[in-house]
Amino acid sequence: MGLFSKDIQTFDDLFVHTLQDIYYAEHQIVKALPKMIDKATNSQLKQAFQAHLGETENHIKRLEEVFRLHGKEPQGVTCPAIDGIIKEANEVVGEVEDKNVLDAALIASAQAVEHYEMTRYGRKDCAALLQQNLDEEKNADKKLTSVAESAVNRMAA
Amino acid sequence: MGLFSKDIQTFDDLFVHTLQDIYYAEHQIVKALPKMIDKATNSQLKQAFQAHLGETENHIKRLEEVFRLHGKEPQGVTCPAIDGIIKEANEVVGEVEDKNVLDAALIASAQAVEHYEMTRYGRKDCAALLQQNLDEEKNADKKLTSVAESAVNRMAA
Repeated sequence: MGLFSKDIQTFDDLFVHTLQDIYYAEHQIVKALPKMIDKATNSQLKQAFQAHLGETENHIKRLEEVFRLHGKEPQGVTCPAIDGIIKEANEVVGEVEDKNVLDAALIASAQAVEHYEMTRYGRKDCAALLQQNLDEEKNADKKLTSVAESAVNRMAA
Repeated sequence: MGLFSKDIQTFDDLFVHTLQDIYYAEHQIVKALPKMIDKATNSQLKQAFQAHLGETENHIKRLEEVFRLHGKEPQGVTCPAIDGIIKEANEVVGEVEDKNVLDAALIASAQAVEHYEMTRYGRKDCAALLQQNLDEEKNADKKLTSVAESAVNRMAA
């Protein structure tokens, strides 16, 4: 939420702003995931990222539908929060050489992203359409935890 | 996670880095909360922020204990994620004039912070000491949801 925040005067403005914020965030995630798929070593982790890329593309389409139902053109606003989370992911991931440690760092970064999205989608004022996005973010988060617990953490011992 | 990320080569490095990251984040939150307490109108919300300020100060002490148990000096590393989340909160909150909309925006911002912390504390590699921090973050998040549902959202109608 940046550029247009001076326009937030009503609850409806705040709702539209949240939509614009998450719309921007989902686009940044679509850009970031292919690099994460490329970096991941563990095949379950690669698959989980790949599946979530497909879901994220659907989230964008659902958001566009919500914008239209709300009588607004779909558009994003710069979101320093998701920019910060992705910047941090790139910094850390760029420096780790050990493949197993790298997988663990990728999972940690991806979970920070999921939790940010869950906050935005978790608001009670969200339409039923957005519930599906929230459910998918939660499932992606659970899947990452299970990958971390099974394959990756086993190698940490 | 920024400055020292080239030092992350082992799982232990990654664990220490996570500690440094969250240590920095908790300090930023201690700085941000008094402004949020000041801006909040709803008395339940003010109290929830005030209570969480006290908890956050304890989180810092617990983290310092974990650093020492781990044979490390407590220190933070710049964390672009929390910086981004707080920057966004300040931008939005600074622009909203309606008191009820402002309370809703404060809750949304605080929940983004809680969810970020939950990700960091939620890792399986965290010591039992950190579990208490995680539990308190989760409770703070639930409390904000309940404040939003009761007082604030009632006025949105």
